[in-house]
Amino acid sequence: MPQKIILDCDPGHDDAIALLLAHGNPEIELLAVTTVMGNQTLEKVTRNALSVARVAGITDVPFAAGCARPLVRTVETAPDIHGESGLDGPVLPEPAIELDSRHAVDLIIDTVMSHEPGTVTLVPTGALTNIALAVRKEPRIAQRVKEVVLMGGGYHTGNWSAVAEFNIIIDPEAAHIVFHEKWPLTMVGLDLTHQALATDDVVQRIAAVGTAPATFVGELLEFFRTSYRDAQGFAAPPVHDPCAVALVIDPKVMTTRRVPLDVELTGTKTLGMTVADFRAPAPADCTTSVAMDLDHERFWDLVIDALERIGEVQA
Amino acid sequence: MPQKIILDCDPGHDDAIALLLAHGNPEIELLAVTTVMGNQTLEKVTRNALSVARVAGITDVPFAAGCARPLVRTVETAPDIHGESGLDGPVLPEPAIELDSRHAVDLIIDTVMSHEPGTVTLVPTGALTNIALAVRKEPRIAQRVKEVVLMGGGYHTGNWSAVAEFNIIIDPEAAHIVFHEKWPLTMVGLDLTHQALATDDVVQRIAAVGTAPATFVGELLEFFRTSYRDAQGFAAPPVHDPCAVALVIDPKVMTTRRVPLDVELTGTKTLGMTVADFRAPAPADCTTSVAMDLDHERFWDLVIDALERIGEVQA
Amino acid sequence: MPQKIILDCDPGHDDAIALLLAHGNPEIELLAVTTVMGNQTLEKVTRNALSVARVAGITDVPFAAGCARPLVRTVETAPDIHGESGLDGPVLPEPAIELDSRHAVDLIIDTVMSHEPGTVTLVPTGALTNIALAVRKEPRIAQRVKEVVLMGGGYHTGNWSAVAEFNIIIDPEAAHIVFHEKWPLTMVGLDLTHQALATDDVVQRIAAVGTAPATFVGELLEFFRTSYRDAQGFAAPPVHDPCAVALVIDPKVMTTRRVPLDVELTGTKTLGMTVADFRAPAPADCTTSVAMDLDHERFWDLVIDALERIGEVQA
Amino acid sequence: MPQKIILDCDPGHDDAIALLLAHGNPEIELLAVTTVMGNQTLEKVTRNALSVARVAGITDVPFAAGCARPLVRTVETAPDIHGESGLDGPVLPEPAIELDSRHAVDLIIDTVMSHEPGTVTLVPTGALTNIALAVRKEPRIAQRVKEVVLMGGGYHTGNWSAVAEFNIIIDPEAAHIVFHEKWPLTMVGLDLTHQALATDDVVQRIAAVGTAPATFVGELLEFFRTSYRDAQGFAAPPVHDPCAVALVIDPKVMTTRRVPLDVELTGTKTLGMTVADFRAPAPADCTTSVAMDLDHERFWDLVIDALERIGEVQA
Repeated sequence: MPQKIILDCDPGHDDAIALLLAHGNPEIELLAVTTVMGNQTLEKVTRNALSVARVAGITDVPFAAGCARPLVRTVETAPDIHGESGLDGPVLPEPAIELDSRHAVDLIIDTVMSHEPGTVTLVPTGALTNIALAVRKEPRIAQRVKEVVLMGGGYHTGNWSAVAEFNIIIDPEAAHIVFHEKWPLTMVGLDLTHQALATDDVVQRIAAVGTAPATFVGELLEFFRTSYRDAQGFAAPPVHDPCAVALVIDPKVMTTRRVPLDVELTGTKTLGMTVADFRAPAPADCTTSVAMDLDHERFWDLVIDALERIGEVQA
Repeated sequence: MPQKIILDCDPGHDDAIALLLAHGNPEIELLAVTTVMGNQTLEKVTRNALSVARVAGITDVPFAAGCARPLVRTVETAPDIHGESGLDGPVLPEPAIELDSRHAVDLIIDTVMSHEPGTVTLVPTGALTNIALAVRKEPRIAQRVKEVVLMGGGYHTGNWSAVAEFNIIIDPEAAHIVFHEKWPLTMVGLDLTHQALATDDVVQRIAAVGTAPATFVGELLEFFRTSYRDAQGFAAPPVHDPCAVALVIDPKVMTTRRVPLDVELTGTKTLGMTVADFRAPAPADCTTSVAMDLDHERFWDLVIDALERIGEVQA
Repeated sequence: MPQKIILDCDPGHDDAIALLLAHGNPEIELLAVTTVMGNQTLEKVTRNALSVARVAGITDVPFAAGCARPLVRTVETAPDIHGESGLDGPVLPEPAIELDSRHAVDLIIDTVMSHEPGTVTLVPTGALTNIALAVRKEPRIAQRVKEVVLMGGGYHTGNWSAVAEFNIIIDPEAAHIVFHEKWPLTMVGLDLTHQALATDDVVQRIAAVGTAPATFVGELLEFFRTSYRDAQGFAAPPVHDPCAVALVIDPKVMTTRRVPLDVELTGTKTLGMTVADFRAPAPADCTTSVAMDLDHERFWDLVIDALERIGEVQA
Repeated sequence: MPQKIILDCDPGHDDAIALLLAHGNPEIELLAVTTVMGNQTLEKVTRNALSVARVAGITDVPFAAGCARPLVRTVETAPDIHGESGLDGPVLPEPAIELDSRHAVDLIIDTVMSHEPGTVTLVPTGALTNIALAVRKEPRIAQRVKEVVLMGGGYHTGNWSAVAEFNIIIDPEAAHIVFHEKWPLTMVGLDLTHQALATDDVVQRIAAVGTAPATFVGELLEFFRTSYRDAQGFAAPPVHDPCAVALVIDPKVMTTRRVPLDVELTGTKTLGMTVADFRAPAPADCTTSVAMDLDHERFWDLVIDALERIGEVQA
């Protein structure tokens, strides 16, 4: 039986690929897509999500816009990585579907509460603002979701500061809320996603799929390669967000370890750090885990398989 | 024309009196009452609000329950001040009205958005969690409300720490959100409310009203007097929350001063302090003010007048 | 019997007047003068101290240079208030005495340890770096000094931030050390010193003394008046540092209140705030006090009396 | 030519071994030994240092006591690791030498200033309080020492919190001071020292030396093994402090990497973390490095060689 997920994202190049993976893989049932400011403004990432839906041929999934700014901090976006549109590189088609009339927070709550307990997995790949607001507005979702599998943070790796990652540091209070709820939570952080590099052979395999969606991904990766090379010195770009979706599809795609996690809110040099305590075996009531080692081949096989299953899409 | 207000509260003895004042005074049109955890748990303060509605004879105003916990912090209540029920002292009648089906956050948003811009005043007398969530979920309310007149904080006075007040310190992140929005905001803090003492003559004047609601207030004040004497060494109890309502009714009931305000989130000894910068005249774009000097007589006249107007209420 | 004091200062216009007051008043026995960076660099304030010694005719008191930078923070000086020299305004004479060969920290320790216990008062009028280092290097001075009477901080008043004062905020860690030692400590803060204004009549009285040192003070005050008018909007300049010396001379010159004090080290908006807890009577073991109300006449009488006693000084 | 070092320590089992290594190895010229509170109180660790001097036969090196407490924080010791004496396990001989009359801070300053610039290496293996005070009291030592090679911190490893190490977290402000000076500084942190395990074969090789000092080390390690097993779950105890000495002796004993380092002072969960920024190649003016991979064999060879060179010592 496929895993039911809500993808909460800020497309974003890697979010777009995460969405394609979630849509194309048969082990995933995509219940809803919600957006949050991050890689670009809410307006831009929401439009991007709808454009990617058209590229992917997604027509029957509700998309809803969420929070336009973090809880406490001011808005910080990442144009150096994702360009002015948030999805620079390919030409973006006009959206073909309308947004759901609900706020993302309500779509998340309604979706979780209307499904059986323990059946819906939240997959946030952006700032955790929507998820935080949802669980504060409707605390019962904390017991009702199956788990949270998020892209963000890092136990030994930072990108937006020495020790903090973008999705967390732009709304650390939201992250603190989400990390402290008692749902099972797996942090697929930079330690893992910096292994998910779109190397030359990966790019060639994607090109070989030969469809419009695959070409779209190729164009995303081309832009992403340049961004990551210039901004962070990577030879091949790390493709973060699909890693979280991949873990929901197949636990064997990466190793994980149960470890207490917390989010630093007051540190001068450590704001937004996801603090993992590896000093001892995790206590019995620890519900947080981190992703550690990626099976690079298995991961990219999933992505390429999804593209192949999507095939050509009617424009 | 009466001032339209939404009262966001956590009854609480002084919240109850604030509600009676708002209901009884003809200059106030009470659009909605929303509740938030604080003086006691959400469940208790919500039931208290409904009980007070019955005491006051409020039947046509929507009441909605809001957040059961602060944004980032764990729940902290004030049983030393308000007792185990949150409204210890009088016998509380069974509620006679039902809660609105909406979450407080949505009732606030719907009420603000369905009235003319610039006509609705928010009067929070508890933690600012509901208001913070409302403005993050629907940012347009920041431009649409007339103003925020809140009880909380203090520029030179603390009660829950040397320099912080209960409503703010129990959810400082929510306060930070609310204080940083661009709506006109007046902080009716402890500097002011510690002048609003229910002295013996006040208690006697209230007793002299002779109605059931007035007796109810008398019983609240009797309990409150003991609490404040034992917990904080007051000779007569400060009745905080109605001060905010009073300011909406009559600006002459207190002096105010425009001054930049901020909320401290990282201080070890100053967490939740409302930091006022009196060093220079407030800049032109400053939208925050603080209440300074209370006209004690005028204030209690308003409260007693409201009780007289309410008169006897059918149980 | 005169009070033995060590004046630890960063001249600085008001430090210079404090030194003249300490030298001229017969109730003070000046054991040592030590300098610390602050109003200007260590090099400048040390030279200024020696120049003022010459103006005042001080020849038999050891002067020693101390710390050139705060414990943790980088150096911050106040040229807007004190000018490029730290003592702009009058022509500064060449020093006539040499510095003691010891470091200020050692001169403080040696002086305290070589006098009877309970006889030496420390009077810091700058950052508390020297005092902090002294008590960490020789912890026994904490029991041995009579008391610490310092100019710095403020319980409800800030100047370098909304709630922090210059001497404290430029080295808050040093202040934390000094405020937490168990010696009796009186904080003569901005709440008090903003009452010590050099009004026109004060300036005229000083001019009327007619000596070279009085003229020197007049020139200091002229510059200070302009600085404080331009930088902080004062009509007459507050003359902070002599207030601490005045309190040692005559407890009747101001009221004080015993109150727990602490120093905020982690606040984003409250760094360096001296947090006073007025919520309840000070506990029995509280050793800290704050100065509250100044007897303006009595204070300036002391300053002018000291100038008169100093009389003319051989250049 | 041997490396001249000042060993600033808090013996402490591994400090004792560091002292034996420094004394026994011919590449080290031990100029002075200074003590600081940490593993136990100043009084205890100072006496321990003198006892170890007797065990090692050190008679011609000045030993001086330093700071009894951290700069800002209260004293925290480690009896769970080092026992009540700070050096539990062996019988400690009565000291045979007297303490230098100077404070450790002055002995450090005098020693550095009396040797040629660039010739003296500071080797702190405890809290950095003494070193911090020394460089604040005499800033010229920052240019004059050759380098600082310290045991403390960790870039990805903590022991006293999830991300902080004991020596740093007990006086983070001192560490901040030392890490921010412009001397070359190498942090031999837990990442490295957790590789320096006293495994069974190491213990056997030490026993085989057969001398009284070697027996003393054997008894230290026996106690240490139990402590580390019970307190932190180690199978064999990590012997931290000699690693710093070993790096001074032989750079080939471990790899190092130049990387910007900072110390977190305000983090709620990260206080005292030594924050390393590995995101990009270290900038040209970066003077800090971290130790990474230990040559376990080479390290223990050095320790055992030192014990063999020390041989039997006259009691």
